[in-house]
Amino acid sequence: PRGTAQEIEEGTTFSPKFDRDGLITAVTTDAKTGELLMVAWMNAEALARTVETGEAWYWSRSRNELWHKGETSGQVQTVIELRTDCDQDTVWLKVDVAGDGGCCHVGYRSCFYRRVPKGEPAKLEATGATKLHSHEH
Amino acid sequence: PRGTAQEIEEGTTFSPKFDRDGLITAVTTDAKTGELLMVAWMNAEALARTVETGEAWYWSRSRNELWHKGETSGQVQTVIELRTDCDQDTVWLKVDVAGDGGCCHVGYRSCFYRRVPKGEPAKLEATGATKLHSHEH
Repeated sequence: PRGTAQEIEEGTTFSPKFDRDGLITAVTTDAKTGELLMVAWMNAEALARTVETGEAWYWSRSRNELWHKGETSGQVQTVIELRTDCDQDTVWLKVDVAGDGGCCHVGYRSCFYRRVPKGEPAKLEATGATKLHSHEH
Repeated sequence: PRGTAQEIEEGTTFSPKFDRDGLITAVTTDAKTGELLMVAWMNAEALARTVETGEAWYWSRSRNELWHKGETSGQVQTVIELRTDCDQDTVWLKVDVAGDGGCCHVGYRSCFYRRVPKGEPAKLEATGATKLHSHEH
């Protein structure tokens, strides 16, 4: 048991809620600009390493493995602040990004480079974001 | 099938990926300040209503029902921009919040009012956020 709702929502103990796959949602923004960079998932080990080392670790659901972000790309994320939300089922990382400052394997700074126009449920349009590098396969 | 990786990542068709519960993660920020307000979930119906009406609809996992944010609190969220990410398994809403401008049922503007200190995996500390209203039960 993670404690009462009161303890979870207003207490000073971090008791993250992992889903039935053992994962928690992580939202990562640029500490300087506030831009939303990516949304990813962490298991308990990734979260523990992130808190301990001050660098972002995730759980890759596609590769099914621990993922030290930037290990191969150089886009290491230094955590400036780590927050959790009221029910402690998500975390928010404010990060400084090393390397070229990007985050998305497609080549953009942020993974969110397309918008859904209002009233157009099946359409995506470019936001004008430009690529920092070419697509990694 | 949602299409090839190329189509999903670089195409102009919105084909959101719902998880096995039929939900997609939604990250909501304040369109003016960029502040992260909340992370919630949408089913296909909530997403369709959000795109169509320009107001945020979610799926409440605790109440197991469609949730027109602000319907009872007055904290209606008008969507200024809706984005999706590279693999289209999350959406990002930039919103203007009506009412008192808040979002969290505990009383804060943002659900992220506590931080996890570096190297302290079991601790939460206040960020200095102040309550807009008292806790809703």
